[in-house]
Amino acid sequence: MSYSPPIAELQFSLLNSTRALTHGGGSLDEDVLAAILEQAGSFASDVLLPLDKVLDRSGASYASGRVTTASGHRDAYAQFTGGGWSALSLPSQFGGQDLPLTLNAACLEMWHAGSIGFTMGLLLNMGAAETLHAHASATLQQTYLENIATGRWGATMAITEPNSGSDLSGIRTRAVEGADGSYAISGTKIFISYGDHDLTENIVHLVLGRLDDAPEGTSGLSLFVVPKLVPLADGGLQPNNVQCLGIETKTGLHGSPTCTMAFGAGEASTGWMIGGPNRGLACMFVMMNRARLAVATQGVGIAERAFQMSYDYAASRLQGRIDARDRQQVPLIRHADVKRNLMKMRSLAAAGRCLMLAAAEAIDAARGAGSQIERASNQALADILTPVAKAFCTQAGVDAADLAIQVHGGAGYVEESGVPQLWRDARVTTIYEGTNAIHAIDLLTRGIAGRNGAHFDGLQEEFGKIASRLAENQDHDLSRLGRALSKACADLSAAVELSRATLKTDRHTALAGSTPLLELVGLVAAASYLAAILEKCPAGHPLRTRLRENFVFFALQLLPETGALLAMITAGRQAFSGVFHEFDRPVGVSAAGSNAFDG
Amino acid sequence: MSYSPPIAELQFSLLNSTRALTHGGGSLDEDVLAAILEQAGSFASDVLLPLDKVLDRSGASYASGRVTTASGHRDAYAQFTGGGWSALSLPSQFGGQDLPLTLNAACLEMWHAGSIGFTMGLLLNMGAAETLHAHASATLQQTYLENIATGRWGATMAITEPNSGSDLSGIRTRAVEGADGSYAISGTKIFISYGDHDLTENIVHLVLGRLDDAPEGTSGLSLFVVPKLVPLADGGLQPNNVQCLGIETKTGLHGSPTCTMAFGAGEASTGWMIGGPNRGLACMFVMMNRARLAVATQGVGIAERAFQMSYDYAASRLQGRIDARDRQQVPLIRHADVKRNLMKMRSLAAAGRCLMLAAAEAIDAARGAGSQIERASNQALADILTPVAKAFCTQAGVDAADLAIQVHGGAGYVEESGVPQLWRDARVTTIYEGTNAIHAIDLLTRGIAGRNGAHFDGLQEEFGKIASRLAENQDHDLSRLGRALSKACADLSAAVELSRATLKTDRHTALAGSTPLLELVGLVAAASYLAAILEKCPAGHPLRTRLRENFVFFALQLLPETGALLAMITAGRQAFSGVFHEFDRPVGVSAAGSNAFDG
Repeated sequence: MSYSPPIAELQFSLLNSTRALTHGGGSLDEDVLAAILEQAGSFASDVLLPLDKVLDRSGASYASGRVTTASGHRDAYAQFTGGGWSALSLPSQFGGQDLPLTLNAACLEMWHAGSIGFTMGLLLNMGAAETLHAHASATLQQTYLENIATGRWGATMAITEPNSGSDLSGIRTRAVEGADGSYAISGTKIFISYGDHDLTENIVHLVLGRLDDAPEGTSGLSLFVVPKLVPLADGGLQPNNVQCLGIETKTGLHGSPTCTMAFGAGEASTGWMIGGPNRGLACMFVMMNRARLAVATQGVGIAERAFQMSYDYAASRLQGRIDARDRQQVPLIRHADVKRNLMKMRSLAAAGRCLMLAAAEAIDAARGAGSQIERASNQALADILTPVAKAFCTQAGVDAADLAIQVHGGAGYVEESGVPQLWRDARVTTIYEGTNAIHAIDLLTRGIAGRNGAHFDGLQEEFGKIASRLAENQDHDLSRLGRALSKACADLSAAVELSRATLKTDRHTALAGSTPLLELVGLVAAASYLAAILEKCPAGHPLRTRLRENFVFFALQLLPETGALLAMITAGRQAFSGVFHEFDRPVGVSAAGSNAFDG
Repeated sequence: MSYSPPIAELQFSLLNSTRALTHGGGSLDEDVLAAILEQAGSFASDVLLPLDKVLDRSGASYASGRVTTASGHRDAYAQFTGGGWSALSLPSQFGGQDLPLTLNAACLEMWHAGSIGFTMGLLLNMGAAETLHAHASATLQQTYLENIATGRWGATMAITEPNSGSDLSGIRTRAVEGADGSYAISGTKIFISYGDHDLTENIVHLVLGRLDDAPEGTSGLSLFVVPKLVPLADGGLQPNNVQCLGIETKTGLHGSPTCTMAFGAGEASTGWMIGGPNRGLACMFVMMNRARLAVATQGVGIAERAFQMSYDYAASRLQGRIDARDRQQVPLIRHADVKRNLMKMRSLAAAGRCLMLAAAEAIDAARGAGSQIERASNQALADILTPVAKAFCTQAGVDAADLAIQVHGGAGYVEESGVPQLWRDARVTTIYEGTNAIHAIDLLTRGIAGRNGAHFDGLQEEFGKIASRLAENQDHDLSRLGRALSKACADLSAAVELSRATLKTDRHTALAGSTPLLELVGLVAAASYLAAILEKCPAGHPLRTRLRENFVFFALQLLPETGALLAMITAGRQAFSGVFHEFDRPVGVSAAGSNAFDG
């Protein structure tokens, strides 16, 4: 098994991004960019790829309150942090490299392709460091930020509880203020990635909890730093009664321990608030949104690796003949249906890459904005593109890994081939960091019909312009596909108009169409970005043929779905009118409660 | 975890099948039918379902040439054979029950829902018994048939070799005739389900091999009975040098040992020919076609169980609120997107059930035909419907298991929930017994454009009539869906016409559209059969609401895909024109060889 990091594609995309890449205050040198991508890619293919199989087989293990990572995991982690990779896009004052998130996303794609079980742990550090940087007091920053940013300490995002998964209003972890301004934290969190491990001396938990006098619902959540070991003034570390009660036996991602964590069982766990009382969700959103973008990069990495594994297999495995001129069996890759599957994987990876980079670019642009208006409009764009990228890229990863099994045939069902691991590892990505259905609700209610609606229309306009330019192309084939893209934009526009109108009059019917709507947006955005990057690549450029093939395949074989999706949205709840009515609300229940799940 | 066998649906379908159900010479009594379904269902829910988890965890194990099944597997097998279930649809003279295959398919759906790892082993016995019944000499039948039909001995289908998977022309297992008319068999077979186990004293392998003077390609294959132990005249059993070299570590289906088998390594293995020299593939087709239908029933069973597991979870798990009137969190099932997923699973299971029963009915009709013409036309129908049912039902199973994970959220990724097992077990079904892509080629080249073309047109006409009748329905909603079905039939008709024309002029382009064409046929057939069964269910019947919901959902949320599929077929190879051209044939290679892979 091998993996060739897609350096050329990533570099071309980054150099042709709509905003200049920056490094600290200045602009990023092309050679530096190339060197970073090369080294990040080598880490993925030389260090992570060989480790990945070990992580699957040995996994992380739990005994007596402690998690032990698989053999080789610690070494790889030390190499990663030693290389200064932990905080590429954090300010240098906290141990970071002051590089754009766009570049970090490109690196993450490759590291995830190498091993999502390993790289998952890094995401938590990156997200926690960003959150502390954005919201924590100077004192907390001083104590924790550089330690986390450099990877010397680990971090987690402690949100989910047994009765509070997609709906955070159910969070019951309790925080009681002490005399010194710290808080006594008590509660149980589940599904905490890297909640315990032996990679670092200390682990810093960002815990969503609730003050006793807080309002019900998600507006009553506060965020706390709760370290496994409390740093003392003398540099020592003191246990804080944070206990790992066990890890889940998951079907994949065995290298990433998924922990049940108890805070303050018996003795108190001490925490320090970030961002003020009842401001927890707003603070956590920084981390959650970064994590969502990072999960999108997981999907792209998986799709690329699924393509490469399948390509290698199909190129070498001889089976069947194409026609009477073939004396011997031919490589699988020459069969039409295998080509279709390979091109589907490759174009899904390429499309996902465009989307993840577009979302990262918007965040970079918001961070580097010169004005409040510029910042707000780029943030709105980021808020729209993040759920689209998360859903599209993770589904692309799952679909590509599934196709990889199919291309490998019987061998793809055997663990030794490595394909089932990719498929099992990929499967969690459409669930965690908000299920894709939650992102569909978010996109509809906030991005399309909510406060970001005008920005969404701007995006639609941008896609329409790309389609129109392409329709004017002198190349007959491309011009025809430009018209196809325009038709897809029209499908999107009709769906958006309908969904907005329906949301005002019949929320449930609108929500019934939210998943197909998210898929429709993803298809149109992906095709548009694939066209845009092709447009930037001149004839004769070494990537031109590949970029053209990716767009052509996507436009002819995936984009036609937009018509079907529009029909599904139009049918809305009518398609399941009355089903499962035995669960409909008993008449006469009175009003109360927030709308956390679908709000 | 529980499973309620869908007795009412199955019984209604069987009683309303287009051909009268027979039992031996007469017609099947309704009470007998009900009793059989009830008992078969109890075996699935009471015996197989509890065993299934054990099979996943302990699996079958291999040591020193022997396979040991998991604890409880032998007991369940003994209960199954003791109950007389092994050969429902074989003649009573060989230990069978003379019942229709349609009823057997209904039972198989339930047993697969209980445990596909267990039931997989039964399929091989059923298929081998049918093959011996159809093609073996009286002497071989006497020696083997009843032993296999009653399950006293096991059986296998030994086809695949390391260099011969989808393309059987590569088979190299050698057969040399001896003085007594038996053959010395030597060769290695891989991926042999239940190639060795401890469920039965003897295992009878049906081995595809090649005589030394046989023509190249698949027309030079012969079929042999090669028992693990040779039955002697005195009733004793003598070892035959059939060795199991190991079992695969698969990602699922752990209860079903997948063996590498060596025949005649060192000392010879003795075999006896079935059906005459070079007639092996024709004989094996009986077994392969039965197995394909049986794999279709696996898909339906999995889809139904995925639905039931998800329904139970969604009905009991409280998460989120629908609107301001909800004081507490509501069951997941009340959320629009969860409803959509549940209805998708249920309608996929229902549609798959219609398709599997239609294929089985055609085989029953061919078997019971009064004339050669009637037999041939029903056999043609079976040949068309078998690949459609195999592909549709297995993909339905995979898709439903995938949705089950999504509905369960994080819990669905944890092995303890049982959902990952269903998903892992399901995944092999689109690969074995001919990958779904192979079935797509078969449907196009044989069923649509080949000798069965006229029968395919007859089927299209039948679908068109169902749509027209529905369009005349007084119920406005149904009449609208009838028009939608007519539109889907028109999409199919256009795709069929195009594919037939293209196949004559540019085979590769036609094959590039074969997978979407198979999907298109599956959608139209499934929707038509769902409409037909609804038509047969009068207002007020206890199943009417459910059947109507299934059809309405399918028509509004799945059938719209036909337009996109037609577009993909129309684009054909153009979508990946020139890609991977580095593998195109070097110029000047001379002509030879058969066309086994796509023929």
